[in-house]
Amino acid sequence: MRKRARDHGLICGSLPTGPRNAITDVAGVAVGHRTLRDGDFNTGFTAVLPHQGDLFREKVRAGVEVINGFGKSAGLMQLAELGQIETPILLGNTFAVATGIEALVGRALAANPQIGRETGTVNSLVLECNDGFLSDIRARRLRVEDAEAALDAASGGPVEEGAVGAGTGMSAFGFKGGIGTASRLMELDGRSFTLGVLVQANFGNAGDLVLPDGRRPVPPAKRTAQPPERGSVIIIVATDLPLESRQLTRIARRCGAGLARLGAFWGNGSGDIAIAFSTAGRIAHGERADIVPLATLNENRIDLPFRAAAEATQEAVLNAMLAAPETVGRDGNRRASLADCL
Amino acid sequence: MRKRARDHGLICGSLPTGPRNAITDVAGVAVGHRTLRDGDFNTGFTAVLPHQGDLFREKVRAGVEVINGFGKSAGLMQLAELGQIETPILLGNTFAVATGIEALVGRALAANPQIGRETGTVNSLVLECNDGFLSDIRARRLRVEDAEAALDAASGGPVEEGAVGAGTGMSAFGFKGGIGTASRLMELDGRSFTLGVLVQANFGNAGDLVLPDGRRPVPPAKRTAQPPERGSVIIIVATDLPLESRQLTRIARRCGAGLARLGAFWGNGSGDIAIAFSTAGRIAHGERADIVPLATLNENRIDLPFRAAAEATQEAVLNAMLAAPETVGRDGNRRASLADCL
Amino acid sequence: MRKRARDHGLICGSLPTGPRNAITDVAGVAVGHRTLRDGDFNTGFTAVLPHQGDLFREKVRAGVEVINGFGKSAGLMQLAELGQIETPILLGNTFAVATGIEALVGRALAANPQIGRETGTVNSLVLECNDGFLSDIRARRLRVEDAEAALDAASGGPVEEGAVGAGTGMSAFGFKGGIGTASRLMELDGRSFTLGVLVQANFGNAGDLVLPDGRRPVPPAKRTAQPPERGSVIIIVATDLPLESRQLTRIARRCGAGLARLGAFWGNGSGDIAIAFSTAGRIAHGERADIVPLATLNENRIDLPFRAAAEATQEAVLNAMLAAPETVGRDGNRRASLADCL
Amino acid sequence: MRKRARDHGLICGSLPTGPRNAITDVAGVAVGHRTLRDGDFNTGFTAVLPHQGDLFREKVRAGVEVINGFGKSAGLMQLAELGQIETPILLGNTFAVATGIEALVGRALAANPQIGRETGTVNSLVLECNDGFLSDIRARRLRVEDAEAALDAASGGPVEEGAVGAGTGMSAFGFKGGIGTASRLMELDGRSFTLGVLVQANFGNAGDLVLPDGRRPVPPAKRTAQPPERGSVIIIVATDLPLESRQLTRIARRCGAGLARLGAFWGNGSGDIAIAFSTAGRIAHGERADIVPLATLNENRIDLPFRAAAEATQEAVLNAMLAAPETVGRDGNRRASLADCL
Repeated sequence: MRKRARDHGLICGSLPTGPRNAITDVAGVAVGHRTLRDGDFNTGFTAVLPHQGDLFREKVRAGVEVINGFGKSAGLMQLAELGQIETPILLGNTFAVATGIEALVGRALAANPQIGRETGTVNSLVLECNDGFLSDIRARRLRVEDAEAALDAASGGPVEEGAVGAGTGMSAFGFKGGIGTASRLMELDGRSFTLGVLVQANFGNAGDLVLPDGRRPVPPAKRTAQPPERGSVIIIVATDLPLESRQLTRIARRCGAGLARLGAFWGNGSGDIAIAFSTAGRIAHGERADIVPLATLNENRIDLPFRAAAEATQEAVLNAMLAAPETVGRDGNRRASLADCL
Repeated sequence: MRKRARDHGLICGSLPTGPRNAITDVAGVAVGHRTLRDGDFNTGFTAVLPHQGDLFREKVRAGVEVINGFGKSAGLMQLAELGQIETPILLGNTFAVATGIEALVGRALAANPQIGRETGTVNSLVLECNDGFLSDIRARRLRVEDAEAALDAASGGPVEEGAVGAGTGMSAFGFKGGIGTASRLMELDGRSFTLGVLVQANFGNAGDLVLPDGRRPVPPAKRTAQPPERGSVIIIVATDLPLESRQLTRIARRCGAGLARLGAFWGNGSGDIAIAFSTAGRIAHGERADIVPLATLNENRIDLPFRAAAEATQEAVLNAMLAAPETVGRDGNRRASLADCL
Repeated sequence: MRKRARDHGLICGSLPTGPRNAITDVAGVAVGHRTLRDGDFNTGFTAVLPHQGDLFREKVRAGVEVINGFGKSAGLMQLAELGQIETPILLGNTFAVATGIEALVGRALAANPQIGRETGTVNSLVLECNDGFLSDIRARRLRVEDAEAALDAASGGPVEEGAVGAGTGMSAFGFKGGIGTASRLMELDGRSFTLGVLVQANFGNAGDLVLPDGRRPVPPAKRTAQPPERGSVIIIVATDLPLESRQLTRIARRCGAGLARLGAFWGNGSGDIAIAFSTAGRIAHGERADIVPLATLNENRIDLPFRAAAEATQEAVLNAMLAAPETVGRDGNRRASLADCL
Repeated sequence: MRKRARDHGLICGSLPTGPRNAITDVAGVAVGHRTLRDGDFNTGFTAVLPHQGDLFREKVRAGVEVINGFGKSAGLMQLAELGQIETPILLGNTFAVATGIEALVGRALAANPQIGRETGTVNSLVLECNDGFLSDIRARRLRVEDAEAALDAASGGPVEEGAVGAGTGMSAFGFKGGIGTASRLMELDGRSFTLGVLVQANFGNAGDLVLPDGRRPVPPAKRTAQPPERGSVIIIVATDLPLESRQLTRIARRCGAGLARLGAFWGNGSGDIAIAFSTAGRIAHGERADIVPLATLNENRIDLPFRAAAEATQEAVLNAMLAAPETVGRDGNRRASLADCL
């Protein structure tokens, strides 16, 4: 097992972490990977499930922040309008978005015969980064079965990090990127709440990375220099704190602070998207009552999840990079591991 | 008493009206006017109070829609961020915004000695239209005492409409504009809820007005033609329905549909702003609990307040115009009354 | 040939129309349909091409307005961020979005070998409405070849309206909906400019429709009442007027006024999206210069395209409805033609 | 003269600075201060002039990013809608916004007799932070003459930093805050362009500050601990690079990255606002032409001003803090100087 950021002495902020320091510290949240590593292919899907029931029938409250909108993610418009998530979240590569939609729609149709008949349609959530540097993205190799495999693999246990699932072909700050995760605990009303983050880290120019201790590691000379920030980063925030969607949107925005602390400035060609959802207070698709009770955070306490989101994002990116080994991909393109350069 | 739209057979939509067909049908909401009509001055303030307690200590949930942002209103940014209103709402003319802020800040400081000391500051809400066609707006005649007079006059009874308060110098579709109001009743969970609208109507080009029955009244030749849509319209929506601020924002947006049904297209020079607030579930400034219960509307029922907001906006504008008599203002500028042209 | 709105005496606004009163009055714009009418299927694709060259290499300036975001359209986030369109626009049904993306990505990859290699990826633009009432949307019958057929059929001539292409399965105000178009001419700097609109009209509750003359036609009793506003409407605005993307966004917003004049209030379950693009001043993907000249509209003149967008949207919807014949679809679901009810 | 960040070895990023490392490196930009230090008062105004002509007649293109909207600034809504600035920019304290508006409106009315008569009104730009910890903000001591004095003092030379003008009563990260500035040079099309930033720094919790070298200075025990982030930060970006307002908005957003690099997470109670304007290509109020030429940046080059904005923001904050001496204010409240704690 590779060392994580804390094992390297890299501490992001001051809040305590959850037991796994992972998004799955939030009860009910599950993560699954499907990794495809084969010749010129270094790609895959990662699934994040807000809960393991039927999300169409039991939606969760959510918010989204488009930190920089150079990206092809699906499902964000409706999430912003309604403040809800009604499918699992799939992360993949840029040209696998359609495949991800097909998988999510297929599953939702199979489980809910009333969709497209007595009730409306379903809003799939698929986010993406461009893995074309290390993988033959033009071949559009990922299949619906790959997305389904990621969904089926989802579990609430430890989260594999680094060059796995949708992180397989990622790059960050000129190093190998990938999937990373982290979490924070928050004490409110005498109870402990958890905020967890999972990132697909594929952003940042070589030379811009700043570690929490001020060091600025630079990747060794690259075989093929990738053009400036053609990456992206996807950030998923989960929490069991009860929140309005407006509050979740505010929290999602603070993930951008975590990225900036690493040296990023949300480059033009980078699709930097943060989604935040709460597992508290599900929304029943067939809710009968007109007026529905919910619980929400006293706005004067929101600095706590703000801080947690910024810290956990920063740490999740470092965990992603540190877990990913040096990788040689398409046409011999190479990415060094940050772990080898500390 | 001048006839209102319904007395002229002009029916906007299908929902039933409240007993007064006014924003004050929402329990606790109060409206007050200060009218200044003197020589070249036809101006004033109108106050709308979400409730008659201390709004800083007991805030209300709110949302805002900037239909077209050519305007100088104060306080909207924080309203959008926090989803809260913490002062009364003042409507005035464009160059009276600072005066309105002074009045609201002064009152809040007087009532809350902890502002600017143990607690933060206060976000005044002042909205405006340009009454320069009928009033000498350059003279900046309105005083803090005028704003205070509007606040002090606020009551929950019938609402005076037309050329009164902030409506005194308004124009709409080439006719005399002003203050108007309307309301709608909504049945949900077996209870009756109310949505009320108050408008400061100062928008629309001569020749564009369409009545609900398809008629297109045109004002008689004007002494001085005002340039295209240098007006604005301010729309205040009040409801006792429990709503999240995201839902209030969606409802505020539908006021734009009410304007468009009258023939408006939200012209470049028109500051068209809608604010919506709910009197249900006040937010205590000094809330001690971290997690706070609230009630909210099942999103699948939101078409009902959407429809109510569009209908009541359309009707409130007609009520404003029909209540306003022909007016001769600054430099002999003249606006005919719509009531005289039906 | 069925009569259009003007042939019925239904006039929307005051600006003159272009020669075809169609989006193709804007030079270079092409429209193509692929209609699939077969048993329980009444569906299809419609393609709108801003120009007939390679849009990836020669992008057009654009803006988007999400009137109501209950929808699954692809590509809007990047359009909003960059103010550009770089593929043809496909309209289809809700579960054909992935298919549309596959078609557009496939075409872009085939024409541009550098995508995903030396240059970045490509942002497909696919918009949708739910045609589940008249078509078996659950079967996901549309194929990549269907999308390609629509793209290949695109031409700059007259535009077929009604139950054709992506309009085949549409409903509007309880009547049969479909594809419609209209245009307006604008005189600026002594030259004539054109603004054209194409709509995929699938919105509005039965009983809410208002004609420009005030009439309120109601559809005959329906075999199966569809639940409230589960529709959507997609609006494409094309113009040869030189505009910044901020201006195009403002113009797109005015399409909502056109919808509201028909009686809509942008219902909760309706994905109402307007895209506006300018054919003036293309953006070269491989632009070498750092500073690029462009032409833009004097903001003080923008009421003219605002008015044009509102008028043409209103008329395009009526043209869509009037061109569509009575249709019996899936499970015998029936939609009457507005033309039969005037 | 106190040492600036670079004199302390604190380097933010990699781009070269302009000759003064100040916002006034952008030709034509002028800054003026009015400082009021008197008993319990530590407050003032700072004026930033995009150019020294009549801004109402010759407007500049602009964009705004509301990083966190807990604030009372005036004029941002119209700036966002039209992408223009038409008055000088005033920075002051929270309860001096109305005073600032009065000053700017007064000046505009005096210089332009057609305002409120033949032409419309004017949109004043006043931004604010809460200086209540060090100054008696409740007394509303600042007068129109103070705002005018700041405007009159504006010059294009060196910019005084620290506890001056609107920076007099500021706090940042538990230290004394204030006004700071920095600039960056950018090479494009073989010419040198400048981007300058001026900040009013009043944000950040004690203990959160991170210096570029990783050090984390903490203020000495404070006499009265101020509650969490009741501050705010205002950031003004000036550049001579030709840009569309959409691009200026994107650049303004990157100022938030500069704040985050210092350890901020844009706290709930902090009004964090960035405005960016370009001095290239003024907009004539009385423009006669309908179609207007302008120059704009090739979007593929925008990472350069993004980087410049993030770097200069970070450095300007440090310059503000380092220039400000230890200060004892209202009721003996004390802020240490960062310069004394390095």
